[in-house]
Amino acid sequence: MLKTKPLVHCITNYVTVNDCANILLAAGASPVMADDIGEVEDITSIANALYINIGTLNARTIESMLRAGKKANALKIPVVLDPVGAGASALRTSTVVKLLENIRFDIIKGNISEIKNLLLNTKNTKGVDAGEQDKTSAANAAQIAKELALKTKSVILISGEKDIISDGTKTVAVSGGHEEMGRICGMGCMLGAICAAYRAEFPPLEAAANAAALLSAAGENAFKNQGLMSYKNNIIDAISVMTPQTFERGKKIEPLYPRTLRRHRQREKS
Amino acid sequence: MLKTKPLVHCITNYVTVNDCANILLAAGASPVMADDIGEVEDITSIANALYINIGTLNARTIESMLRAGKKANALKIPVVLDPVGAGASALRTSTVVKLLENIRFDIIKGNISEIKNLLLNTKNTKGVDAGEQDKTSAANAAQIAKELALKTKSVILISGEKDIISDGTKTVAVSGGHEEMGRICGMGCMLGAICAAYRAEFPPLEAAANAAALLSAAGENAFKNQGLMSYKNNIIDAISVMTPQTFERGKKIEPLYPRTLRRHRQREKS
Amino acid sequence: MLKTKPLVHCITNYVTVNDCANILLAAGASPVMADDIGEVEDITSIANALYINIGTLNARTIESMLRAGKKANALKIPVVLDPVGAGASALRTSTVVKLLENIRFDIIKGNISEIKNLLLNTKNTKGVDAGEQDKTSAANAAQIAKELALKTKSVILISGEKDIISDGTKTVAVSGGHEEMGRICGMGCMLGAICAAYRAEFPPLEAAANAAALLSAAGENAFKNQGLMSYKNNIIDAISVMTPQTFERGKKIEPLYPRTLRRHRQREKS
Repeated sequence: MLKTKPLVHCITNYVTVNDCANILLAAGASPVMADDIGEVEDITSIANALYINIGTLNARTIESMLRAGKKANALKIPVVLDPVGAGASALRTSTVVKLLENIRFDIIKGNISEIKNLLLNTKNTKGVDAGEQDKTSAANAAQIAKELALKTKSVILISGEKDIISDGTKTVAVSGGHEEMGRICGMGCMLGAICAAYRAEFPPLEAAANAAALLSAAGENAFKNQGLMSYKNNIIDAISVMTPQTFERGKKIEPLYPRTLRRHRQREKS
Repeated sequence: MLKTKPLVHCITNYVTVNDCANILLAAGASPVMADDIGEVEDITSIANALYINIGTLNARTIESMLRAGKKANALKIPVVLDPVGAGASALRTSTVVKLLENIRFDIIKGNISEIKNLLLNTKNTKGVDAGEQDKTSAANAAQIAKELALKTKSVILISGEKDIISDGTKTVAVSGGHEEMGRICGMGCMLGAICAAYRAEFPPLEAAANAAALLSAAGENAFKNQGLMSYKNNIIDAISVMTPQTFERGKKIEPLYPRTLRRHRQREKS
Repeated sequence: MLKTKPLVHCITNYVTVNDCANILLAAGASPVMADDIGEVEDITSIANALYINIGTLNARTIESMLRAGKKANALKIPVVLDPVGAGASALRTSTVVKLLENIRFDIIKGNISEIKNLLLNTKNTKGVDAGEQDKTSAANAAQIAKELALKTKSVILISGEKDIISDGTKTVAVSGGHEEMGRICGMGCMLGAICAAYRAEFPPLEAAANAAALLSAAGENAFKNQGLMSYKNNIIDAISVMTPQTFERGKKIEPLYPRTLRRHRQREKS
């Protein structure tokens, strides 16, 4: 799908790293995983995008994330943050604060609990999943995404039944997918990695929206009720054989704002 | 299958961590992997069970295992130990000794060589597999499981053609499965993780027996002679679509003791 | 396929470690992954081969690689090196230099950019993939393999459309496979791991040639245009059910040198 085979440097968790690598290859990118402080700047320097995922962070890799992110900023290489489990431990929460203080991110992708932790310092994240008490409407999620976008100057992607994406001015929703996607380990990490790959070829909002639309399109068609591992494999398979035409037909990106606002005004006028 | 979506904190090896996460999701649990000493206590505190697997242990993660295990004990959160490769290196053997000195485990699951290492300090483990010289009858394994259960006050699960489970007083055997399961990487780790998930909802002996029965039931039906990767995926798939009714039909838990003893006595009387 | 179920100690990256373990099991070997400096010598000592892959190297594991490799040399246990990403960062390049200074490798397997980095200190590696400017003919690759073999006294395996294997005197090419194999994450790592397993039963050149032929044979038959994850699983599946007869029929090992030379001379004479 991608045209330039962007090299994506991933500093990510050891749980889903293989899925991230495979989905990047499937989408036409080239993954490279490297997390030692002695080489992350070298690797970021030759990459077209950097993906930082704090999934199984440790004292050693946190330093590498900081070092790589600063280098990326200096070289104007786009950076995507996946604050996995922010709000579930003090270390994750404080690490995200430190990363945001030192690095400007093009895109921050998280579930509603992780994003609310970044915005409001709530602590409802249930491990790496959103807490029940944080589940909310798309309209509320859009408001939260917009506020965090304005605060961080990053595009915010809140994953959920509908994915909400906002740059603070423009907000879109991506639908599609399948409810079982929430039970697949690594779906969120794969989405973050794909955001980084798309960011190498698109502006931030378009990158995040296309990444979410790609997984939703694949996830919608790939479900065959065989079980979760087959479903995960089917999704990556689907992306690896997807054509621009198939993607165009499956893509469900809907403007929420300003369109919603204009609609509202039109109604007021009529 | 599980009813309360228990959060299972796993400190486990990087080889099979993804399979452990997926099988936990398939069984209805919620996995969270975290191993930095700066956060393991936080994560254990919000979890419903802790799974410690020493598969690719290192100096850093050994400390995290100790810290998390003590926290779990203090908070009465159940802990499961998988002493992968105990007996294959001095580090693994001594680490298990240290873990047992500092943490009370609800369930300890291992192959016959690992369990004999814990009981008798034998060193026949061939990497992460049981050594040929340790392979023994179900009756002998039951005796070993019983002795280690009495020594450690843990439920002992010895995996094998028949899985043997003992709390020192009661001993059961779980059959089913398929001989090719022994060639699937991570089968043992997945069993350990499922033990932890079940322990969040069941007492220790029932938890271990149900976990073993779940994998055996899935493994029996999922084999289709296509090859090992398909077989692994089929097993996780099967669990993700299994109903309580299907499980009930596939479950093969057989009491070895006290039933065996009573039978013996009945024969003597008649 | 392997006859003695060799125990293969792998110090490898966390991206593809699970695939390496599964393909070793599929081929009839027994994998053990261990990277802590406190145990690598113990584990190497009981192993039949050692596989060192620098894919996600770090300061801690580099020391473990050195320690394990020296122990293997001392005990005459064969060692295989996979210099993943050599040339992509200063750390990887210098680590490979240090490993070569301290350890004698039986087989070194890499893509053309990694191998050219070892021979000529070029730096064209694009992350973990070969750089476009390094892609060359089989004849040129054979020359490079031969030169590095003479320099290192190792068998050199350059993976590519045709895999080229040379011990400095004899050079062979392995064909088969499918172009989509290049898009599967971990194909190279799996080839390296299989080299180590075969080295436990074969001399170095035969081991490398058979390993390459095994993956090529599986990769040729397993492709079904379903997508990349299915393709990867199909390859490992195919190896796990392959018989010596099927392998014999699929094996495409072609002598390049001295046969090519003899042919040339025959032509000159006639």
